[in-house]
Amino acid sequence: MRTGWSELALTVDRASIVPIYRQIYERLREQILAGALPEGTRLPPERSLAERLDVNRSTVVHAYRDLAADGLIEQRVGSGSRVASLDGGRPDRSSGVPWWVTLPPWRVGEFPAVLGELAAAEHGDRIAFVQGVPPAEPSPLADLARSFERAGGDVRFVLTYGDSEGYGPLRALIAGRMRARGCAIDPRDVLMLTGSTQGITLVAQSLAEPGDEIVVEAPTYPGALQIFQIAGLRALPVPVDEDGMRVDHVEAILRTRRPRFIYTMPAIQNPTGVTMNADRRERLVTLAKRHGVPLVEDDPYGELAPPPAAPLLAHDPEYVIYLSSFSKTIAPSLRLGWLVAPRTIYERLLLRKQSIDMASSMYIQAGVRGYLERDYDAHLAALRAELKERRALAHAAIERFWPVGMRVQQGGDGYYLWATAPRETRARALLANAERRGASFLFGEAFYAQSGGDHNFRLALTPVPRAAIEEGIRRIGEAAR
Amino acid sequence: MRTGWSELALTVDRASIVPIYRQIYERLREQILAGALPEGTRLPPERSLAERLDVNRSTVVHAYRDLAADGLIEQRVGSGSRVASLDGGRPDRSSGVPWWVTLPPWRVGEFPAVLGELAAAEHGDRIAFVQGVPPAEPSPLADLARSFERAGGDVRFVLTYGDSEGYGPLRALIAGRMRARGCAIDPRDVLMLTGSTQGITLVAQSLAEPGDEIVVEAPTYPGALQIFQIAGLRALPVPVDEDGMRVDHVEAILRTRRPRFIYTMPAIQNPTGVTMNADRRERLVTLAKRHGVPLVEDDPYGELAPPPAAPLLAHDPEYVIYLSSFSKTIAPSLRLGWLVAPRTIYERLLLRKQSIDMASSMYIQAGVRGYLERDYDAHLAALRAELKERRALAHAAIERFWPVGMRVQQGGDGYYLWATAPRETRARALLANAERRGASFLFGEAFYAQSGGDHNFRLALTPVPRAAIEEGIRRIGEAAR
Repeated sequence: MRTGWSELALTVDRASIVPIYRQIYERLREQILAGALPEGTRLPPERSLAERLDVNRSTVVHAYRDLAADGLIEQRVGSGSRVASLDGGRPDRSSGVPWWVTLPPWRVGEFPAVLGELAAAEHGDRIAFVQGVPPAEPSPLADLARSFERAGGDVRFVLTYGDSEGYGPLRALIAGRMRARGCAIDPRDVLMLTGSTQGITLVAQSLAEPGDEIVVEAPTYPGALQIFQIAGLRALPVPVDEDGMRVDHVEAILRTRRPRFIYTMPAIQNPTGVTMNADRRERLVTLAKRHGVPLVEDDPYGELAPPPAAPLLAHDPEYVIYLSSFSKTIAPSLRLGWLVAPRTIYERLLLRKQSIDMASSMYIQAGVRGYLERDYDAHLAALRAELKERRALAHAAIERFWPVGMRVQQGGDGYYLWATAPRETRARALLANAERRGASFLFGEAFYAQSGGDHNFRLALTPVPRAAIEEGIRRIGEAAR
Repeated sequence: MRTGWSELALTVDRASIVPIYRQIYERLREQILAGALPEGTRLPPERSLAERLDVNRSTVVHAYRDLAADGLIEQRVGSGSRVASLDGGRPDRSSGVPWWVTLPPWRVGEFPAVLGELAAAEHGDRIAFVQGVPPAEPSPLADLARSFERAGGDVRFVLTYGDSEGYGPLRALIAGRMRARGCAIDPRDVLMLTGSTQGITLVAQSLAEPGDEIVVEAPTYPGALQIFQIAGLRALPVPVDEDGMRVDHVEAILRTRRPRFIYTMPAIQNPTGVTMNADRRERLVTLAKRHGVPLVEDDPYGELAPPPAAPLLAHDPEYVIYLSSFSKTIAPSLRLGWLVAPRTIYERLLLRKQSIDMASSMYIQAGVRGYLERDYDAHLAALRAELKERRALAHAAIERFWPVGMRVQQGGDGYYLWATAPRETRARALLANAERRGASFLFGEAFYAQSGGDHNFRLALTPVPRAAIEEGIRRIGEAAR
């Protein structure tokens, strides 16, 4: 059987950190190993494939050379490249091929670069509304440094691992703050994390198996979607409106499906900025209990609301696994977050946490403890005021510079604006145009588990100087015209 | 069908962090859900089971109550506890049972607490030769604190995530140091980790799938064994002698099996302290290439050897994934390590790293960069001298206080002594005895993937004051008599 290369399914993702030649290599390799391109199949000539993908010919040459070096294709002068004989279609690991040819299947979606982009330090001299980092002012730096200095006085913190559960006095402080928000929890229910993203991975790997379904918001945090993809989970999307997740959609799903958990960000949702109303919270927890499905509450922004909303955890600590972080309220470079989980799952999460990094840094935990005791509440108040001011600036600039029909989500708060471009404008095209004018943002498709977001984009208002907000928004408006 | 409870397979692990009632609950739950205890099976009366397991009756009562609350057993006054009806043996997730009853299977072995114990801060007032932490002197603290202070002068480090690959200048410094040890690598081959344990997890999850086989040393680092267990990998053990891993055994395995990778610690192996000789290194790399199996080289102690040995990575950067850490050379609380991987796997590891914690702390990385530039080499020299002195003290005390027949591994170096008790003495019994006399260590079974180590134990010479080494060893000798 010979399959023509005209049927070849092959696309490249220019936003990816994976070099394009490697993407071509990987996708052809997978199709060859899966038998979709059987022995003898002719690959497209290098020049044709390069034209079709709009890449340099040398990129395709490089990919083909690697495929040939790994024994997956044969190249002959004059007759081009053909899929090699692989002992009946797929080399098993006894055939002596290099180890990287027979790696396990790798599940990544179309936007594997998003998490990397969210962490990336460099954006050139663009006004980059990309990263969800705290604004430069108010800066926690001076107070933090003093707190580290005080903590560093005790040698123990710098030399030891510390308990995997986390530093006792810090867990107690966090439990106290959460009790003040209505959660009936104890310090021993708290597990310190190296950022709350770690908690999403712990949950994805501990509560579900590859192939299982879960429920997510649409749009939602792209980092969570990347984690769920890598874990092999199938995400069922539920829309979000100005009152938060559409719980009626959750109810419809639960009538026929058995998701392993429901991932939600009920307070100041990323990217929409909306907060779930009281009625929906009540209904969501009731539904979860009725159907025996736990809620995974991701709450990195909850303390930015004045006053902080009662988490879902306050409704039922047995059906909620709660995640939060100091990345958005102090600094991401601390890499410090926490989860609160019921006893029924705590040990599993703890053992996985140990296997991921033993324990979160005691040095950091000891420093943050002191900061929480002395400086945190004042910093939160200043941060809330700064965010409010930035949002007002942004709204005024949008009013002034954006075309009619390009609008932002109402009812939002916090770091982000979730925008919708006019129907005829795709956000990726708008981004390309805006980048030429010196402004950038994240396109909306990355926030959707399945389809959606083509016309949406997210502006992070915090990573740029406050004075640049107006100009950046003006440039995006110009790009949209 | 009714199965009598006399066949019930049930043991408890007193060393585990999991409470005993919860262990009983978990194991009975698994057997009920797996159908090993079908509907109607009578469970042992609480008092009998308590006696058999040597636990309090209330512990069993607690476990049974939780099983009943979750609908897994029925309790009737007078007729005891029976396995409940579960729609034909196993409740599916549509039957409305609480979510924690139908969690995915959980693979942990007999010693899940070991990683936690290695990280734990508290050992009472025992002389605890347990944790592999650097000795209190030479302390890196003062120089580290100065380095953090210098780094903190640049606000960027405290506020941002930083690249997921790690902080560029630090990666360049590390690549330079490794080039000096013979490795032909580039800074872009380095991926910064939140401790090298994280690298073991990345490798286990990226290179293998549940059910796959891998090769490990016997004995080896228990943390790695825990990670492999959680990942569902089956570890094939290869013995270690005074010249390192028995490569002839590896060769025999590769004749008939296809392990996904070979996990080895060729320099100053944990727990034996031995270093693989040059001939075996050569043969191991040749074997790996011939059979298409990558080597995972764990090297946290390599820089403690004067001069540092050339890693396996120096032999072939395409077949070696290299892991190392600053936990043993500066301080574990930094939670900072790195890996070096070929391009063929780097992106997978990077994307998984992102999903585990986005990026390692920029704050920590910036501080360590300065420390590496100014202070690290002098600190390493002082640390090597301190370790040498501690080993000499320990050997002298063993000579003096241990009974004939209790000996330690020859040819070792670094943090640990690997000891063998006389044939009639089990190390766990010796530990119980030593603890009563105020000394402790890790028993050997935790270092073996399968059987072995009953008569072995590991002494970490670094976590105790230097002056306590002799007394601690004396107490263990007394316990052995």
